[in-house]
Amino acid sequence: MLREPQQERSRTTRRRLIEAAMDCIGERGWHGVTVAVIAERAGVSRGAAQHHFPTREALVAAAVELLGEAQLDELRTRAAGSPGGSSRIEWVVEMLLTLYTGPMFRAALQLWAVASTDDQLRDVLVPLEARVGREAHRVAVELLGVDEAQPGVRELVQATLDLGRGLGLANLLTDDTRRREQIVREWARTLESRLAGTEQV
Amino acid sequence: MLREPQQERSRTTRRRLIEAAMDCIGERGWHGVTVAVIAERAGVSRGAAQHHFPTREALVAAAVELLGEAQLDELRTRAAGSPGGSSRIEWVVEMLLTLYTGPMFRAALQLWAVASTDDQLRDVLVPLEARVGREAHRVAVELLGVDEAQPGVRELVQATLDLGRGLGLANLLTDDTRRREQIVREWARTLESRLAGTEQV
Repeated sequence: MLREPQQERSRTTRRRLIEAAMDCIGERGWHGVTVAVIAERAGVSRGAAQHHFPTREALVAAAVELLGEAQLDELRTRAAGSPGGSSRIEWVVEMLLTLYTGPMFRAALQLWAVASTDDQLRDVLVPLEARVGREAHRVAVELLGVDEAQPGVRELVQATLDLGRGLGLANLLTDDTRRREQIVREWARTLESRLAGTEQV
Repeated sequence: MLREPQQERSRTTRRRLIEAAMDCIGERGWHGVTVAVIAERAGVSRGAAQHHFPTREALVAAAVELLGEAQLDELRTRAAGSPGGSSRIEWVVEMLLTLYTGPMFRAALQLWAVASTDDQLRDVLVPLEARVGREAHRVAVELLGVDEAQPGVRELVQATLDLGRGLGLANLLTDDTRRREQIVREWARTLESRLAGTEQV
């Protein structure tokens, strides 16, 4: 009879630790963060934290997975409210180019910077990033409603997501909203003319 | 009579410290680096290093400035060898989209990641980055040979540089060369069709 509630408690603890990890890394950077610091933020004892995640790397792997899932969920939820007709592409482009301007990108960037000098963290991140990247690409293709079998379509969708990450970087130290809005408008116009006739039927 | 050589020596020391700083930050990240570590790498005494640069921030400001200058010099040198005719845009796009895949971007990214959680470093970086960004934009416009007074041109040039930074991120943990080459080709085609008729006369 005690089993169910304990499993539930365990899931809640994991979830709280993962969320605290992303908050701490985003705010203090990787080097300001230990399992102990994260446990304190989550309101969980250090022993319990270490039971769930013996290392910082294990915690980060779980966090990156959740982060990727959360980002994709958000994409799908927003996609459900997309308008039809001619304003659709601008709406999708605006969404994709704003994807990487929030606290999640900020936290991910901290991890990438560290992983570029830390092989252990890199081995954790690379496969997770590849999976999230593929899924973001799939959702983008679906939202744009285009056919990847047409020449150039795949590369233009990829370029849109890469441009989004570049705009995320540009928004890191200063508020880049106004400049980004103009780029969104122009890129939507460009995609419209380049993708005309490649819609999935 | 001793004055000239001493000034010269002093310049050489500064230069060596700055180059060692970029190497160390790129390899170990900001948190693995102190003025003492940099001095050792540069083969300069700790006292001499502190005479030139009392803090890590001062050293970084000088390094970012040199880094920006070096990047712009490289752009200009490569620009001098640009082909004419129809392959010119693809050549320029290839150059701009590969700008951020080297060790300099790697070092800059370490600094950005830290600056996003460190106000002191941010205050040093923001004005320097703005200046280097403006200059890169000016050089890109010149190389593409387009007229910014035409609607949309300014935004497409900005998007090209933002895409370059996004591709730099994608190249950070894995070798992204093959995928990037296909994006370069498609982006060049896109710019060619969007920029047709906007050339500076």
